[in-house]
Amino acid sequence: MAHFAVILSGCGIFDGSEIHEATATLLALDRAGVKATVCAPTGPQMHVVDHQSGQPAEGESRDIRVEAARIARGPVLDLADVDPADYDAVILPGGFGAAKNLSTFATEGADCTVRDDVAALLKAFHAAGKPIGAICIAPAVVARVLGPIAPVRLTIGTDPGTAAAIEKTGAVHVAASVAECVVDEEHKIVSTPAYMLAESIGEVFTGVSALVEKTLSLC
Amino acid sequence: MAHFAVILSGCGIFDGSEIHEATATLLALDRAGVKATVCAPTGPQMHVVDHQSGQPAEGESRDIRVEAARIARGPVLDLADVDPADYDAVILPGGFGAAKNLSTFATEGADCTVRDDVAALLKAFHAAGKPIGAICIAPAVVARVLGPIAPVRLTIGTDPGTAAAIEKTGAVHVAASVAECVVDEEHKIVSTPAYMLAESIGEVFTGVSALVEKTLSLC
Repeated sequence: MAHFAVILSGCGIFDGSEIHEATATLLALDRAGVKATVCAPTGPQMHVVDHQSGQPAEGESRDIRVEAARIARGPVLDLADVDPADYDAVILPGGFGAAKNLSTFATEGADCTVRDDVAALLKAFHAAGKPIGAICIAPAVVARVLGPIAPVRLTIGTDPGTAAAIEKTGAVHVAASVAECVVDEEHKIVSTPAYMLAESIGEVFTGVSALVEKTLSLC
Repeated sequence: MAHFAVILSGCGIFDGSEIHEATATLLALDRAGVKATVCAPTGPQMHVVDHQSGQPAEGESRDIRVEAARIARGPVLDLADVDPADYDAVILPGGFGAAKNLSTFATEGADCTVRDDVAALLKAFHAAGKPIGAICIAPAVVARVLGPIAPVRLTIGTDPGTAAAIEKTGAVHVAASVAECVVDEEHKIVSTPAYMLAESIGEVFTGVSALVEKTLSLC
């Protein structure tokens, strides 16, 4: 039985993992017969956003891993304790958490920094020849880590500004529609736009299911 | 195009709506071509549970509707503003939020009270002959509201204690497996056990998809 790590970054599109994408990932893995272990870094989110108003909630602080546990329905592994040797692949769902908590892409674009634990993990999977799946905005994190090492090919859909920021890292951006995955066979990177383009939750499930299948086929 | 209201009770199994069940509901509705409007009551959750430790977070307070907006990816309608005339049916996903925020079932069982706005809405849908779908523990809320009026037939799976509490309200509990729905054709109530019995997210999606189809067929 294949075993994938799923890296979450909180719980909620505006300050954490996008819930539909994360749930789609877990469902697609279950349907594909893949064991999933959810993990997340420990530490405060960049901020807490009131998803009703869309505005940051002043004075509130939430921990990335504690909130990610909502999506996992219980305890999730500390990202710092993930040993790549235990997994066949890793998947990163999207949501602003990828660009705010796993990295500073939301505020610094191509010049962003990625958390050390996240960067070390992605480099280890890449070096071991194990596939990395990245959804929505999460490919920007993968690009920032691996772009300076190799010209990895990936997609965030069609947004020109985000695509340009990704190309500045050394990665190659490939435009894709919501139903498509971009597969870099050499570097074993699979990516799909999901809510960067999706106009319905059904479109998200279609793209994420395809991503899980492609990632599994590269194991 | 059919139009369903989906009543959420927060965001997270232990203090709000169960995320996989709520997401499954929105996905199944999208696939069935049904428009979904997410709504939730305004007001503080019974408590906030740290989903990593499983313990209540002391001194924290979160609003039911503001947290539900995480699952909806943005603003959700105040339950008090829902006019049943605008909808063909209503669905209640599970999670402890149904038993803690929509009602006091978690602490008071068969003698629980249901929020006035929730009770009024369920009575209005029932009186109008519009279907009600209830998932996981949410049928207990429906039973508490409609059981004293009519012998509605529904399921929470097989748990004897919960089934007995439901029967005390005047409702009739019917045991069901995770893949099944119980359909009360007369009163147009559809229910499925989901995580009351499910051992995987795939089982939840199977049951919830069946529930959405059955509910739509009763419209």
